[in-house]
Amino acid sequence: MPVGLPLPTELLPVEGIRLNAVAAGIRYPDRKDLVLIEIADGSKVAGVFTRNAFCAAPVIVSRQHLLQAAPRYLLINSGNANAGTGTQGMQMAERSCLAVAQAAGVEAKLVLPFSTGVIGEPLNVDAIEDALPDLINGLEEENWLAAAQAIMTTDTQPKGFSTALSLSTGSVHITGIAKGAGMIRPDMATMLAYIATDLEVDQGDLDHLHTEAVAASFNRVTVDGDTSTNDACMLMATGKSGVRLSNQADRHLFTETLISVYQKLAQALIRDGEGVTKFVEISVVNAQTQAEAADVAYTVAHSPLVKTALFASDPNWGRILAAVGRSGIADMDVGLINIYLDDVCIVEKGGRAQSYTEEQGQEIMDREEIRIQIDLGRGQEATSVWTTDLSHEYVTINAEYRT
Amino acid sequence: MPVGLPLPTELLPVEGIRLNAVAAGIRYPDRKDLVLIEIADGSKVAGVFTRNAFCAAPVIVSRQHLLQAAPRYLLINSGNANAGTGTQGMQMAERSCLAVAQAAGVEAKLVLPFSTGVIGEPLNVDAIEDALPDLINGLEEENWLAAAQAIMTTDTQPKGFSTALSLSTGSVHITGIAKGAGMIRPDMATMLAYIATDLEVDQGDLDHLHTEAVAASFNRVTVDGDTSTNDACMLMATGKSGVRLSNQADRHLFTETLISVYQKLAQALIRDGEGVTKFVEISVVNAQTQAEAADVAYTVAHSPLVKTALFASDPNWGRILAAVGRSGIADMDVGLINIYLDDVCIVEKGGRAQSYTEEQGQEIMDREEIRIQIDLGRGQEATSVWTTDLSHEYVTINAEYRT
Repeated sequence: MPVGLPLPTELLPVEGIRLNAVAAGIRYPDRKDLVLIEIADGSKVAGVFTRNAFCAAPVIVSRQHLLQAAPRYLLINSGNANAGTGTQGMQMAERSCLAVAQAAGVEAKLVLPFSTGVIGEPLNVDAIEDALPDLINGLEEENWLAAAQAIMTTDTQPKGFSTALSLSTGSVHITGIAKGAGMIRPDMATMLAYIATDLEVDQGDLDHLHTEAVAASFNRVTVDGDTSTNDACMLMATGKSGVRLSNQADRHLFTETLISVYQKLAQALIRDGEGVTKFVEISVVNAQTQAEAADVAYTVAHSPLVKTALFASDPNWGRILAAVGRSGIADMDVGLINIYLDDVCIVEKGGRAQSYTEEQGQEIMDREEIRIQIDLGRGQEATSVWTTDLSHEYVTINAEYRT
Repeated sequence: MPVGLPLPTELLPVEGIRLNAVAAGIRYPDRKDLVLIEIADGSKVAGVFTRNAFCAAPVIVSRQHLLQAAPRYLLINSGNANAGTGTQGMQMAERSCLAVAQAAGVEAKLVLPFSTGVIGEPLNVDAIEDALPDLINGLEEENWLAAAQAIMTTDTQPKGFSTALSLSTGSVHITGIAKGAGMIRPDMATMLAYIATDLEVDQGDLDHLHTEAVAASFNRVTVDGDTSTNDACMLMATGKSGVRLSNQADRHLFTETLISVYQKLAQALIRDGEGVTKFVEISVVNAQTQAEAADVAYTVAHSPLVKTALFASDPNWGRILAAVGRSGIADMDVGLINIYLDDVCIVEKGGRAQSYTEEQGQEIMDREEIRIQIDLGRGQEATSVWTTDLSHEYVTINAEYRT
């Protein structure tokens, strides 16, 4: 059961973006597993991809195509990652682009392929080709929710957020969908996300907005530290509203709103994380550098002992403290460290806080949403990451995914 | 159930070492939880301790005392780690040393304290003081097995190995015991190990032997990547055999044998790892550097997705490949990488091996002991680490340890 994650209700259409999802029978017998996103001519598109050295064929092809031109079509299949599939996998990815290109009457380089699912099995491009006519015929501006559902793998529910935003020269829409529930960690791990706006914006601005928003959202979530071969996050701006960021106030408002949509999507991945029973924010403050803050936050977020204690609702601050201690920070003075569970100080100057009672800790650990704040007391930098606990359900899901 | 771990049978006495274990009621009501090891005057002792910045009070005291003189007594309690206990914890550790010193008629600096168990609760030194007369009166050379049992925490069985070794000028004994089943990883994580020999050896030689043996054994095992605040590994040489390492052949034979005892103890921690159902060797070969080989080996060994696949006996080479891909090796050419399950090539040149069949992989994954070999194809260096799978039992143990 996801933690504090409502089902998407109204996902606003974005003028210039049409979508469709069909059941192509790629892996799942009775559900939609193939999505096409059509982007109006003249749109700008920004993308970031996994940094895993073993990136999948569709990632390689998408990167190449994106360098050549602004894409017109994004083709996404769930159920098969087309990763670890060698030369044949590259051919399959190229062939799927060509099929879309021929059916839609554009060049193949204007099609970007995305795949998510099991690694190391050949992608059934015949099934994709067979499904293309229906896929293209059904393209509609209103199909965001259907697309959100069709890109799911181990997700238990679709993820999408949408907002309308009034700027000084008019209003714009921002709508985004995402999938992913495990293998999620910084540097773009197992997740796909597609965000669109009808804002009119230059390519350089769009790239900058995208990078900034990803850094503050998808690169700050982790379920298990594993990263994927396939992940991608795309931002599309169609310009169809005719509204531009004409002053600093507009720019600030749009950036904040965009980041908020990205963060809701990123946190949705965690709220629906594999086997999740807790949604946990690990916040590190007063670090010397951002990198140091992130190292501590991720060491705590990835500690199986901290995660199993969270699952057990056990206020076991000793495990948090031990994880902080092994995070590799040079010259760490443990006597400066305070740790809080929400607003309760549990560790003071490196030891159990005098004022702390087990009952206070228990009351917080029994909640579904928990914030662990670690004050290193050695600088001014801070960062937060969002993560899950480690439950029996996580083991069950990951021990049974393929079989 | 431990994997391939026999119960210790004959643990040879080491002349100059006497031990005893009693039930002091520190945490466990009905079992021995306090051990004293007496080391004959004139012995040499080498020690290594956790590198976790949050090291426990007994570690701080043991380090200080070991710098001042060769210890005569090692006092070990299980059930309470005396970690995260601040100034009071330091006082308790010092007081326990003083109590032993007074009862045994030596200086307090000749006593080293060791604790393992729950973090952040005050150590009951009254209970230790009450138990001391019985503890000292019962010291015997034959008590190694009782000591191995009394230092256990979540271990399911005691761990000890022993060997008699013929050198050119006589024979010596090596006997060692260890505890630890989780929080085990390099740099001395939650484990305690005590190894003794009656060899006559200089302090410098002993330190060198100890460091070399630890590097090849305890620093190459990992259950969950978590490290402890309390770990220590001590090597004692009493000299009572009168046998020295008088030539290169003797030195070589003794070193190899000592490393073998350390490796058996280290692997015993993994074979009895929390919730273990598989004993797994991750071997990385043809790396550019030892550090690079270790980075890849540990990234794979710590991957929850690899570990849950091992639990499921699922030959999911895609997860191994994805973990290798995120291990942070600069300029990794995935086209050079081969991966083997035992002797079956599963990944060839970065993709699924042509010759590989799922049945071959399944046959190996169904075994209790599995070797994953990763050939990076970019150098001459190699290393191995030993680890476990990630099972439901692991979650159960760690979600219920305190409650």
